[in-house]
Amino acid sequence: MIRATTSTLLSPEAGGPVKRTVLPSGLRVLSQSVPGFRSVTFGVWVGVGSRDEPEQLAGATHFLEHLLFKGTERRDALEISAAIDAVGGEMNAFTGKEYTCYYARVLDSDLPLAVDVICDMITSATLTPADVESERDVIDEEIAMHADETSDHIHDLFAEQLWGKSPLGRSITGTPESVAGLSRQQVVGWYRRRYKPSNIVVSVAGNVDHADVVRLVRKAFERHWVTEEATPSPVRRGGKPVPTYSGVQVHHRDVEQAHLVLGMPGLVRDDERRYVAGVLHGIVGGGMSSRLFQEVREKRGLAYSVFTFGSAYADAGMVGVYAGCLPKKAPEVLDVIRAELESIAGGNITPDELLRGKGQMRGSVVMGLEDTGAKMTRIAKAELVYGELPTVDDILHRIDSVTLDDVARLAADLYGGTPALTVMGPFDENTTAFTL
Amino acid sequence: MIRATTSTLLSPEAGGPVKRTVLPSGLRVLSQSVPGFRSVTFGVWVGVGSRDEPEQLAGATHFLEHLLFKGTERRDALEISAAIDAVGGEMNAFTGKEYTCYYARVLDSDLPLAVDVICDMITSATLTPADVESERDVIDEEIAMHADETSDHIHDLFAEQLWGKSPLGRSITGTPESVAGLSRQQVVGWYRRRYKPSNIVVSVAGNVDHADVVRLVRKAFERHWVTEEATPSPVRRGGKPVPTYSGVQVHHRDVEQAHLVLGMPGLVRDDERRYVAGVLHGIVGGGMSSRLFQEVREKRGLAYSVFTFGSAYADAGMVGVYAGCLPKKAPEVLDVIRAELESIAGGNITPDELLRGKGQMRGSVVMGLEDTGAKMTRIAKAELVYGELPTVDDILHRIDSVTLDDVARLAADLYGGTPALTVMGPFDENTTAFTL
Repeated sequence: MIRATTSTLLSPEAGGPVKRTVLPSGLRVLSQSVPGFRSVTFGVWVGVGSRDEPEQLAGATHFLEHLLFKGTERRDALEISAAIDAVGGEMNAFTGKEYTCYYARVLDSDLPLAVDVICDMITSATLTPADVESERDVIDEEIAMHADETSDHIHDLFAEQLWGKSPLGRSITGTPESVAGLSRQQVVGWYRRRYKPSNIVVSVAGNVDHADVVRLVRKAFERHWVTEEATPSPVRRGGKPVPTYSGVQVHHRDVEQAHLVLGMPGLVRDDERRYVAGVLHGIVGGGMSSRLFQEVREKRGLAYSVFTFGSAYADAGMVGVYAGCLPKKAPEVLDVIRAELESIAGGNITPDELLRGKGQMRGSVVMGLEDTGAKMTRIAKAELVYGELPTVDDILHRIDSVTLDDVARLAADLYGGTPALTVMGPFDENTTAFTL
Repeated sequence: MIRATTSTLLSPEAGGPVKRTVLPSGLRVLSQSVPGFRSVTFGVWVGVGSRDEPEQLAGATHFLEHLLFKGTERRDALEISAAIDAVGGEMNAFTGKEYTCYYARVLDSDLPLAVDVICDMITSATLTPADVESERDVIDEEIAMHADETSDHIHDLFAEQLWGKSPLGRSITGTPESVAGLSRQQVVGWYRRRYKPSNIVVSVAGNVDHADVVRLVRKAFERHWVTEEATPSPVRRGGKPVPTYSGVQVHHRDVEQAHLVLGMPGLVRDDERRYVAGVLHGIVGGGMSSRLFQEVREKRGLAYSVFTFGSAYADAGMVGVYAGCLPKKAPEVLDVIRAELESIAGGNITPDELLRGKGQMRGSVVMGLEDTGAKMTRIAKAELVYGELPTVDDILHRIDSVTLDDVARLAADLYGGTPALTVMGPFDENTTAFTL
């Protein structure tokens, strides 16, 4: 029998050391023991997301995530959820563009149960024809719900506009039409091809012992999966850059509030300027003292909500500004946002703003790790998508090193790029009120 | 000089003991030291909410909450937010029907700053005419935004329907009309009358020392407020019960998803059956194994989201069920919900369901306290609205004592009451598709 390899990744920091074991099947198990907590968050991350789907499978990854809760060889849907509810735990899952995650937060003594239930779902979901049909209806409901959440939905529309027909531009859920077109056989095939030990990272944080976790996970996976030897899938790296599109799109919606997203291509995930980008976000639109919040809301009372956002993938990224405001004020809001981006791209940033931008990023790093779910997510993403796990001290050091010049140069690069604009509200879709 | 009185409320549990000091001015300071955290959450709770407003002041409490961020004698809006952003903290506030809360989460070493900034806002906001006007626009924006968040907004419409013209039935923000009608003088008067030491509870949790907190808070309050001697305001207790209304209301909205709230009068806050109500919530609609989730979503695929909710005030309470579904399925969803409530009111509850309901409530109590914000909130509410602070062990004991019979009796009482139904979606407002 091939032995598992275990190593310690980090010396003690906030929480104990992170330990990592690679099983012979290629399954990776990471854990961080955090003293003082009674809870444990257990997560299973599968390296498959919506961007992996060919067009005829659009929505299959998210559909599968739903179906895993519907039943396994040992448990029906009620038994799956009842197991965790009975011990007062929380269990959920989410699908991203590059991964799918299932997790449960339970009291430490209930970790064996959480491991058993989630690994059972991962390894032996039955995906019965009846469940596929009833869950298809639930997904239609979810898509309809999401379409009504206008301030969220506009981000999907913006991604579609910026990345066009690339899989990265598609909504994670798929459309009612694409979901209607998915056969059970296609979904089962997707499950068999993508859910395998070498493509999975298990991550746990809280009051746990690493050796216990490895033993529990190994037992749970080997119960159903014949473990051939394999090496872990490598981290997803950028290939050809994803093409981007510009222009203005106006979507008519009879709502009280208009929504704007003005954005442009951003950094890819492993760009070394990502800490600079974090500081820039703080300066431009990260908090109440940010330039946009001050100019749009505090000084002019033009919008309740205005902020910058960004996302980064292996081979693509975006940065942008969101604002929600009364429809009649939308053109003015857009003018103010564009003027501020231009000013910042021109290097107009004060040392005070730099200090605040760094302070904000530092605070969100340190305070954002004070729960077991956040720690679980951090170590899983380090393994699955980043391929490195810097210590918190490292990160703080990299933030401190950012200079005014770094920020100004990056601002010029990003905001000097060709923007795209998505608008939603009670507007004629051919209006010329919004231009770039 | 009158000395402050300090006492220890709880022996060590999850976190250290809770300490309480009453200053001569009637201001109460509570703190809980939580080892292992680097953050501190500092909150100031003022015992005034929207239900305290006479009709001509509807929205004044929330308006005031916004205005406190606009400037004080020492700081303008940018300086207020910049102070906290620069140290990476988060600061926010919310207005409820019975209280208003301002809070900041910062690293432990930044507690003096957080105390200074928030107490400055509480004691010496300037409320300038210009700020009043520009913030009125922001509130219009917020009201418009909230009206578009249909799955939240329906809860406001339901409260309006159940409690009618009582202040408890009104939306916390007021309406655009009521906010337009508020003069600066009215808001200033409201501030002077309601913001005073005897009506304020300061609450802190995290890596803190009680004596430090008391010293900092005292200094910050005495800087601006002449502290006459006073005793703390008593906990709000129920008077005459708030009248409730029944019936069906259909609101037309061109949205993809229909929303339903079916509800009825619930328990007042200090009803001794509140632990039974918590268990009942778990059984009927608290989690994925709950009766409604299973019957509506898992078995029939009729809705993405269905859950029970409740709220309790000094003299009134409500319980209800929310569901969001495709419009064509709304009548069937309503039928399923009503059938299940009837079945449960008839005592049809299994011992397994009772176990899960208790497990869920236990878990949410224990795991819901693993951050400094939740602990800060718990001790503040104990002081301000409950008038008692049970230990976590006490609470767990009271949950364990709930019997099947207790739950069945309460279900019969609550679900046997006269319901009200609020529906929103692409329906004719005179439709007869929804009946009670």
